[in-house]
Amino acid sequence: MLGTMLNNVRQSCPLVHNITNYVTVNDVANVLLACGGSPIMSAEPEDVYDITTICGGLNINIGTLTKESIKGMHIAGARAKELGHAILLDPVGAGASALRTDTAVSIMDEVKPTVVRGNISEIKTLALGSGTTKGVDADVADAVTDENLEEMVAFTKAFAAKAGCVVAITGAIDLVSDGEKCYVIRNGRPEMGKITGTGCQLSGMMTAFITANPDNTLEAAAAAVCTMGLAGEIGWSRMQDGDGNSTYRNRIIDAIYNMDGDTLNGGAKYEVK
Amino acid sequence: MLGTMLNNVRQSCPLVHNITNYVTVNDVANVLLACGGSPIMSAEPEDVYDITTICGGLNINIGTLTKESIKGMHIAGARAKELGHAILLDPVGAGASALRTDTAVSIMDEVKPTVVRGNISEIKTLALGSGTTKGVDADVADAVTDENLEEMVAFTKAFAAKAGCVVAITGAIDLVSDGEKCYVIRNGRPEMGKITGTGCQLSGMMTAFITANPDNTLEAAAAAVCTMGLAGEIGWSRMQDGDGNSTYRNRIIDAIYNMDGDTLNGGAKYEVK
Amino acid sequence: MLGTMLNNVRQSCPLVHNITNYVTVNDVANVLLACGGSPIMSAEPEDVYDITTICGGLNINIGTLTKESIKGMHIAGARAKELGHAILLDPVGAGASALRTDTAVSIMDEVKPTVVRGNISEIKTLALGSGTTKGVDADVADAVTDENLEEMVAFTKAFAAKAGCVVAITGAIDLVSDGEKCYVIRNGRPEMGKITGTGCQLSGMMTAFITANPDNTLEAAAAAVCTMGLAGEIGWSRMQDGDGNSTYRNRIIDAIYNMDGDTLNGGAKYEVK
Repeated sequence: MLGTMLNNVRQSCPLVHNITNYVTVNDVANVLLACGGSPIMSAEPEDVYDITTICGGLNINIGTLTKESIKGMHIAGARAKELGHAILLDPVGAGASALRTDTAVSIMDEVKPTVVRGNISEIKTLALGSGTTKGVDADVADAVTDENLEEMVAFTKAFAAKAGCVVAITGAIDLVSDGEKCYVIRNGRPEMGKITGTGCQLSGMMTAFITANPDNTLEAAAAAVCTMGLAGEIGWSRMQDGDGNSTYRNRIIDAIYNMDGDTLNGGAKYEVK
Repeated sequence: MLGTMLNNVRQSCPLVHNITNYVTVNDVANVLLACGGSPIMSAEPEDVYDITTICGGLNINIGTLTKESIKGMHIAGARAKELGHAILLDPVGAGASALRTDTAVSIMDEVKPTVVRGNISEIKTLALGSGTTKGVDADVADAVTDENLEEMVAFTKAFAAKAGCVVAITGAIDLVSDGEKCYVIRNGRPEMGKITGTGCQLSGMMTAFITANPDNTLEAAAAAVCTMGLAGEIGWSRMQDGDGNSTYRNRIIDAIYNMDGDTLNGGAKYEVK
Repeated sequence: MLGTMLNNVRQSCPLVHNITNYVTVNDVANVLLACGGSPIMSAEPEDVYDITTICGGLNINIGTLTKESIKGMHIAGARAKELGHAILLDPVGAGASALRTDTAVSIMDEVKPTVVRGNISEIKTLALGSGTTKGVDADVADAVTDENLEEMVAFTKAFAAKAGCVVAITGAIDLVSDGEKCYVIRNGRPEMGKITGTGCQLSGMMTAFITANPDNTLEAAAAAVCTMGLAGEIGWSRMQDGDGNSTYRNRIIDAIYNMDGDTLNGGAKYEVK
């Protein structure tokens, strides 16, 4: 099932508009190409309307946001919404600064993304809302573990239901929910955290997956999470003595490039709750 | 002959000012170093005049343009023109948005670059012009093939003659013309399209080539195209089982780093029409 | 001794706020992760106050500066100063443009960084000052060599004493001084100059080192220089036939990732004058 999601990306080659941070943008572009999508980047407010119009999906990542790029996010978001495009929000650093929190919350409220993907801290910030916006109970733990799994699954479902979108919380255990079902995913390796931007890369790839599978957003988002994690496992298996995080970065992208639906189906480790 | 162009880059180490997109800028810098040039990046309008002044060539790439960087392109372009520097325009995404089209056309008109390098779609957009500007007949195919080669060569020559610069159209078959002669180049591999920014990398490297060979712009531009394509072939020959587009990116830059004039002369596949 | 500095980074995992150029930012982030630190990037004036507040150190790199990011540098610098954070200035291109020189000088004067790290040309520009600011005698050579070593050590000490910070001049021979002592370091390889941003990478890593060792700024800065140079040596030893500057970049970061205090102590090549 998840393998079909990947195959659909490779067959339809979705063009994804990325408004994303300059730290990890090159890797995001190469991961999008590796999985079968096609990336285009633009953040300039006067440019984004046209660029979003020719794309199939929109990936909004608020790392290294600027006042100008925030305008671009809202213009592109409104246009993508109008066209029925798949939209993903990656609320990088929400909770770490007022500007990031406010920007992420306003994109949730106004653009209403198809999927939001972040770490538990960022998603909790969104769930709590900001200013007068009050969200679901975000008084949950700071990491998803086997001990608190049921509680975190309930939180993820509740926030997804309230926000009206698919919510993906990634970490050692990943949770992906549409409010009713929740994928609990255990692919990946801890060393992936020593590479900058694996989260950003996943968000870019996930946008391609949800764009290519418009009728299966939940499964597509879960498939992207499994693809990234499995690539992390395959990439690690090819590491040699003396290799470190820079080579690991290359090996993960390479593993995505070489992955097919059967490999994904065979390697995906998940349960649905 | 083409090998001499590369050797001249290595001997003169031209300093190239790049106003380029943040997606591929790191690879552009490393490719410039790999071929023997030296890169400096600056897009801030208040900074570019001074930076261009100390350089030998200017590479203007409009991917991820902003209103501020467009100002920088024009200021740097005017200064480079004044100093007689080699100037290259890479009209990334011309045709995909009004802002990109207008920016590329205005740089063509006002800066009058030494070389313009893009894919067929971008070059057709420039040939057509925008607004009241009317260009040469751009009613040609969307890809250069053996079937339409004569027609595309004629189009490239006509646009080069009208624009008064060298025009490089890159794709499966590359065409480089100064209006009179046209290099038809068949180096490279299709897998290069799965790496982000091979076009941007080529533009950066080509700026070094035309800067180091001011009396042979056409041959220098063709040599840069052959160098990139041949590096794609050499890099591919070093790929191992499990490698993908991320490793391929490294191998191509490595191959440029190790290339010398003799290797280029031996591996370049071209004819002149 | 120097190994302890590295071990302290790995144990405390300092969060470093980077306002840095978009050319090399991805490598800076991966190097910070490789050495045991944690990077966050933000340049937007409305964002930097909050981001700096949650960090332990601040890395200001003026490559690809913009008028907006310069505002961000001053806001973040003032806040970091207020909090007693370690602050590093990398004056990329000071001397190459008036805007870069003025920005670097004003950050020296107003932010008063803990460490300034640059090449000899950039540091000479700072020592000379700009406008009415008159610095120490910068009438010294353009490279540190065995022949002019005593003179360059004296210059470095004098500028460090006058500026009230640690000064690190990197090149074939590196000098790091607090005004009284001067480390003369001979790690590294000339091929590192063929990779874009090894200086920026060092500045990011050095910020982690001085943040993790607040009572030993001089030793921490010297340890970072030795770590980078030794990684360049180890990375080079792993190069294979056909490899070039792109692979070398990966191998250097990998070597930092795998380095421990004992390796650093065993491989560091320095004397203190």
